[in-house]
Amino acid sequence: MTRAEYLGGGKFAVTADVPTEPGPGEVRLSVAYTGICGTDLHIVHGHMDRRVAVPGVIGHEMSGRVAALGTGVTDWSVGDPVSVMPLDWCGRCPACRAGHTHICHRLNFIGIDSPGSMQSSWTVPADVLVPLPPDLPLHHAALVEPTAVAVHDVRRARVQPGERVVVVGAGPVGLLIALVARASGAEVLVVELDPRRRKVCASLEFPVLDPNADDVPASVNDWTDGAGAAAAFEVSGSASGVALATSVLATRGRFVLVAIHATPREVDLHRFFWRELELIAVRVYQRTDFLEAVEFIARGEVPIETVVSKILPLAEVAQAFDDLERGTGVVKLLLDCRAEAS
Amino acid sequence: MTRAEYLGGGKFAVTADVPTEPGPGEVRLSVAYTGICGTDLHIVHGHMDRRVAVPGVIGHEMSGRVAALGTGVTDWSVGDPVSVMPLDWCGRCPACRAGHTHICHRLNFIGIDSPGSMQSSWTVPADVLVPLPPDLPLHHAALVEPTAVAVHDVRRARVQPGERVVVVGAGPVGLLIALVARASGAEVLVVELDPRRRKVCASLEFPVLDPNADDVPASVNDWTDGAGAAAAFEVSGSASGVALATSVLATRGRFVLVAIHATPREVDLHRFFWRELELIAVRVYQRTDFLEAVEFIARGEVPIETVVSKILPLAEVAQAFDDLERGTGVVKLLLDCRAEAS
Repeated sequence: MTRAEYLGGGKFAVTADVPTEPGPGEVRLSVAYTGICGTDLHIVHGHMDRRVAVPGVIGHEMSGRVAALGTGVTDWSVGDPVSVMPLDWCGRCPACRAGHTHICHRLNFIGIDSPGSMQSSWTVPADVLVPLPPDLPLHHAALVEPTAVAVHDVRRARVQPGERVVVVGAGPVGLLIALVARASGAEVLVVELDPRRRKVCASLEFPVLDPNADDVPASVNDWTDGAGAAAAFEVSGSASGVALATSVLATRGRFVLVAIHATPREVDLHRFFWRELELIAVRVYQRTDFLEAVEFIARGEVPIETVVSKILPLAEVAQAFDDLERGTGVVKLLLDCRAEAS
Repeated sequence: MTRAEYLGGGKFAVTADVPTEPGPGEVRLSVAYTGICGTDLHIVHGHMDRRVAVPGVIGHEMSGRVAALGTGVTDWSVGDPVSVMPLDWCGRCPACRAGHTHICHRLNFIGIDSPGSMQSSWTVPADVLVPLPPDLPLHHAALVEPTAVAVHDVRRARVQPGERVVVVGAGPVGLLIALVARASGAEVLVVELDPRRRKVCASLEFPVLDPNADDVPASVNDWTDGAGAAAAFEVSGSASGVALATSVLATRGRFVLVAIHATPREVDLHRFFWRELELIAVRVYQRTDFLEAVEFIARGEVPIETVVSKILPLAEVAQAFDDLERGTGVVKLLLDCRAEAS
């Protein structure tokens, strides 16, 4: 059994792990795979030092099996394949009382604010488990969490069949949004700076533009017969992405704010006014999104071979982060956390 | 018969007017009252020189009576009391085809892009007329157009009974939004810099804060038991108003962008993300808003004596703009355009 401990300052230690018994209402999981999220990169860059305990275990995109049940847990059996919706809310704050538990004022994001899944053996509240179909390969199921983000974002964007929508930024979440929006019946155009990511998009038959070489607003205008896009997803996190997403929208178009912008951005509010645009900000997911993401993956709608660039043993966690930093064509990288893998 | 011609450079000429016969499908109106809008001030400041013909007649908030019918106009009779919804759309552009005629790509805003109502006698397409109840005083009805703006904004904001909403900026439109939102069942708090405008708000029994003296976010937090406001209307047009409206919103709160911001503004997109906020931009109105505004005023929901600070004869148009510039406690100023008034 292995555990990757994040030590701060961008460093990890890989240690042996002795599983403990789950407490009342808890479940111990054997983790199969953990994906590395953009947020994990932010953590390793030190941007989230105030939230993350050090030393500690991070990771929140996972698949695995139930290994042991705490007292009072009756809905699950040892061996059940599961993923985890890593949100633990207080249930009492104004956001929870209004029904927005997923963005609780005191949210414990499991894997960020409390220990995560970069370990062979992980104990979580039974409430957060999400069942998986028995025949779904567990390295596919590790994509359920980021896919749930995409499902949430497309749902909040009210994407309708036949609409033409633009995705600005084709990292893993942008790519999954493009896939979910297309499966919802929309026509999707992707804008991406990186030539390797553009190649991935093209291989999935998305029309794709390079914002440094192409006149994106003019192209979208042509593509939509002068109307503009019905929705634009800002997934780049850049100031220029914000400007671009604003510029391509049709009258009453929806600007969907997906990326995290740590600093305030200049926004062309005159354009918002002139076309009665809407901005819809999105954060994580709700349970319905998670359940739909499981079905989406189980139906084979996510091309796993394209999206999962690499699977490395958990013991090579430092190498995995290095690969992502260098961005050598990597889309999504999984850590194999199975006890037998290390 | 009198006409106020705008000459450019902030100057007007008052001239005698000879009424012409309306063309096919047109109606000649005897204008009773014309309100002066913030947009008219922008015109006189020279900010809209590219749109406004000089010399020309401006003005688009009006009431009056049908004076003569062009051929083919059968739905109206001479003497009918009317207001005008001053939007003339092309019907063929992508916005019109999508049903958003009110913000047509080639919109002719009558009174800005074509001659307006600062004249005793005004000819318009019959399509733009809005009927008024026979017993509604015409100086009340001159407020229909700005009230339609407020009705549109509150409708687009999806304000629900019992919600607590904040209005940032209590000029005429901000005040009308506060009145319409309160009549929709919301509790409304107003934020306003100007002490005279704060006094007007207080006289209408709105709680009102001074952003220079009060801790607005803390006060709204207390007022909403820690939740934040369900909606915040940005009617100030200032960078600080944008920041303030963003800061007071509850989880999933709606930022309603009413004011025109000519330059891009810094927006705290992290706050938008964190609370899944929405930004809804609003522009002018649709016919349903205009009809509702007529009813709203006819029910006596707009305290005319408080909102209409002054009525001046059309011949004193230059004085009227001066009074507004000096802002000596003026909320809304009407020009009496009746032929017998000059």
